[in-house]
Amino acid sequence: MVASQLAAVLSKLQTLYSDHASVVSMNLFVALLCASIVIGHLLEENRWMNESITALAIGLCTGVVILLTSGGKSSRLLVFSEDLFFIYLLPPIIFNAGFSVKKKQFFRNFITIMLFGAVAKGSVRGWLGVIKFFKEMDIGSLEIGDFLAIGAIFAATDSVLNQDETPLLYSLVFGEGVVNDATSVVLFNAIQSFDLTNTNHRIALEFIGSFLYLFLASTLLGVAVGLVSAYIIKTLYFGRHSTDREFALMMLMAYLSYIMAELFYLSGILTVFFCGIVMSHYTWHNVTESSRITSKHAFATLSFVCETFIFLHVGMDALDIETWKFVNDRPGTSIIVSSVLLALVMAGRAAFVFPLSFLSNLAHKSANEKISFRQQIIIWWAGLMRGAVSMALAYNQFTRAGHTQLRCNAIMITSTITVVLFSTVVFGLMTKPLIRFLLPNSKVTSAPSGSSSPKSITVPFLGSTQDSFEDSPKGVQQPSSIRALLTTPTHTVHYYWRKFDNAFMRPVFGGRGFVPFVPGSPAERSEHKLPQLQ
Amino acid sequence: MVASQLAAVLSKLQTLYSDHASVVSMNLFVALLCASIVIGHLLEENRWMNESITALAIGLCTGVVILLTSGGKSSRLLVFSEDLFFIYLLPPIIFNAGFSVKKKQFFRNFITIMLFGAVAKGSVRGWLGVIKFFKEMDIGSLEIGDFLAIGAIFAATDSVLNQDETPLLYSLVFGEGVVNDATSVVLFNAIQSFDLTNTNHRIALEFIGSFLYLFLASTLLGVAVGLVSAYIIKTLYFGRHSTDREFALMMLMAYLSYIMAELFYLSGILTVFFCGIVMSHYTWHNVTESSRITSKHAFATLSFVCETFIFLHVGMDALDIETWKFVNDRPGTSIIVSSVLLALVMAGRAAFVFPLSFLSNLAHKSANEKISFRQQIIIWWAGLMRGAVSMALAYNQFTRAGHTQLRCNAIMITSTITVVLFSTVVFGLMTKPLIRFLLPNSKVTSAPSGSSSPKSITVPFLGSTQDSFEDSPKGVQQPSSIRALLTTPTHTVHYYWRKFDNAFMRPVFGGRGFVPFVPGSPAERSEHKLPQLQ
Repeated sequence: MVASQLAAVLSKLQTLYSDHASVVSMNLFVALLCASIVIGHLLEENRWMNESITALAIGLCTGVVILLTSGGKSSRLLVFSEDLFFIYLLPPIIFNAGFSVKKKQFFRNFITIMLFGAVAKGSVRGWLGVIKFFKEMDIGSLEIGDFLAIGAIFAATDSVLNQDETPLLYSLVFGEGVVNDATSVVLFNAIQSFDLTNTNHRIALEFIGSFLYLFLASTLLGVAVGLVSAYIIKTLYFGRHSTDREFALMMLMAYLSYIMAELFYLSGILTVFFCGIVMSHYTWHNVTESSRITSKHAFATLSFVCETFIFLHVGMDALDIETWKFVNDRPGTSIIVSSVLLALVMAGRAAFVFPLSFLSNLAHKSANEKISFRQQIIIWWAGLMRGAVSMALAYNQFTRAGHTQLRCNAIMITSTITVVLFSTVVFGLMTKPLIRFLLPNSKVTSAPSGSSSPKSITVPFLGSTQDSFEDSPKGVQQPSSIRALLTTPTHTVHYYWRKFDNAFMRPVFGGRGFVPFVPGSPAERSEHKLPQLQ
Repeated sequence: MVASQLAAVLSKLQTLYSDHASVVSMNLFVALLCASIVIGHLLEENRWMNESITALAIGLCTGVVILLTSGGKSSRLLVFSEDLFFIYLLPPIIFNAGFSVKKKQFFRNFITIMLFGAVAKGSVRGWLGVIKFFKEMDIGSLEIGDFLAIGAIFAATDSVLNQDETPLLYSLVFGEGVVNDATSVVLFNAIQSFDLTNTNHRIALEFIGSFLYLFLASTLLGVAVGLVSAYIIKTLYFGRHSTDREFALMMLMAYLSYIMAELFYLSGILTVFFCGIVMSHYTWHNVTESSRITSKHAFATLSFVCETFIFLHVGMDALDIETWKFVNDRPGTSIIVSSVLLALVMAGRAAFVFPLSFLSNLAHKSANEKISFRQQIIIWWAGLMRGAVSMALAYNQFTRAGHTQLRCNAIMITSTITVVLFSTVVFGLMTKPLIRFLLPNSKVTSAPSGSSSPKSITVPFLGSTQDSFEDSPKGVQQPSSIRALLTTPTHTVHYYWRKFDNAFMRPVFGGRGFVPFVPGSPAERSEHKLPQLQ
């Protein structure tokens, strides 16, 4: 029964690809992807642009051209199916985020996640005011679930900070971005599964429980799959030269973790993220040198292509005529909604960053460890961008039937596009100059080689244990500074974790032997070092 | 209009993936892929098994389990859409074949291709006898186009020879396999575009013209895209460290070549194959060392996963109940058709290998260069396997509506499955023992390090120019043997090609500088050498 149903759908799909028009679209899309990469490369030294904005701009231009040639009918080459996004595009991006995240900074931010969870819980009530406002705007039949969804949608942040120029700020904002994306998706799934026609305490508690269950179960699944992959590769493959099998197994296991999470109605995005972290900590060290280089670069490239694809598509989609025509009769409403959303994003981010920075500064005595106000501004600013994940969530919530038939949904879509475009382009364009203005010495003081950033940049954000996670190769080369750090009393949790890791985890799951410090993750070993290590 | 049509199909697609049953299928499929890889690895030292047979066996077992649990309804997890195959699975396999093919042996076999074209032309008439036979069998309303398609389908060979044990025989059979696959697809496309209700000389000539046009245009397109990629990467990227962009561009350009060919109604398989050859000859040498390792292994891994996927699916599909129930009422017919097809494949292969070997032996005086009868048997035997490409072509021809509704189509599908299963399992299982029996010293005499195979194995197959293409690093290290080869008068074409390559192509498109010999392609540089070369 299911099989015949699938057969019917797949035969439709086959008509789709047999259709010559879609071949033209695919050609154009792949060619545009190539163009984005080449132009992005040429504009690399430009102080205003970055790859996301380039892809967005190319998408917009193409949209205009298609709109003109098709006589105003459509601006899209491919219809953005959120399943295309969730099945194919998102897993590589999030997996690579986990695979290449600097574990040191990420686990410091783990407390942020919990705080964010609390903030999100509080925001459920905060949204009630927004709901009242939208009700008065009379934009249609939005339900309370939609409003919670809007909150989750705009919790997903994106970042364009440069890892080489401002390594710590990048890690803070990027690590947060990934966590926000994940939290967003988890929240979103939790919201979707609830009947939120009326809110009371019982439902709120159930919601929190559901959120925590999703979060913990997804994390555990990801860790479990990652450990299984490490164990299999260590037990069967160690020392043999079957590079392709190793890499194939890593890829398939990572994807398996994602779809297994979907199977159990968990959050695939969180699962694949933690699977990536575990794989970079254990599995990556169990494979041959060739597989290490291959996996590091291939995952990064896949993620890069998927991101470019999404930005290209968002740019093209911004001109989608079917959505805009619902808005045309009342352009004021759309502008107001977009502005309100943008203001909420900025205010929400400010309400999140500045108090937490204040708390963090209170906990630290030395001036070096404090986050300066200028750095707070950058953390706030760089987190304002709403990117591909917001888009996907918006589409998932508001275009159930494939297209936007209801006016309120159309307004929500256009507003999301407006916020994404505005925040990416305006905030994105301003980020590089802003960093140069606020932290004029950042490029000079931060070494381009990576993790040995000076103290003026390595500000703690939240944790008091920021440097005991020194997991870069640099740590091994600088025994004096590390010993100084080890003597500080703030590293207990990580000290015991490392002890546990060395005593129980590594003998079973591999990793870089019994080296005292957490071995370099793929992100932390520069390219030119790899060949000599063999 | 097209957009809304696409939207409808994509929304169907989205229902498909939202369907929880399909998530279960995908989980099972990915898990089975992992299992195939692990079991294939464990059985690597086994003298009977290989990865294809393992995947087939696992597919068969799973099919039985599904058949039993579903109460005899279906044995399939995913319905094999030939577009899934042609859009996603085939391009990586064929691209990697081109990317890693030993150019020396491949271009030697180029004459084989032409001869094969002639043979294929001749076989059009040969099939007329078969048609008469099938007509008498009364298996249904097959048209003449179907019969030509059957010829093309079974022209596609597969190979399970081990590259390390019998390097030259592997290259001969594998190179041929790829060429046969490509020729098969081209022939098949040419046949499909013709109205073959009655054959006469004009149509035959048109057919040959169409075949040649497809062949030449596809090849040129692939070469052009490959050269463009080399030029772009050389001009813009040389010396910079943007590994991910380089690899992304290689991947996207390779895929672009494939879909561009589809756009122009050419043969994407040929295009992407030649794009792979050009990329391994020029583009690959223009990128950073990391990109080289990454691209080499990532392409090989992708190809490996796709092949395993196909074999797994063929194994599962063999038990498809809907197809077999059409055959059940007359099992004799199916067995006879399968046997006839198998006999034709064996006879056709014999008619192709032995006379050509005889001709090749006539042209050579020295006993070392002759192909012994035992080697001829292995060439014949290893080429008997009909694999994934045959399956895909059969599905493309006989399951237009997504399922096999006509009895004749069902018989053709089951016969193809039978031939593929039988040839892969029986011939595949017998290949390793056969080689050990006929060439007992092959493993001892052929060095495992690769290209320096002894003369008793490096038999010439067709060309008289077999060793002037010495493009392996070994060639540089063995000046005496190379000088001896250079003095032979048979290398003129390749000598002039290399002169042209050095004088005009390499200054523009990169490649490995002005080194006198063709630089090592990805396949010819062993892994452990790469790091030191940086």
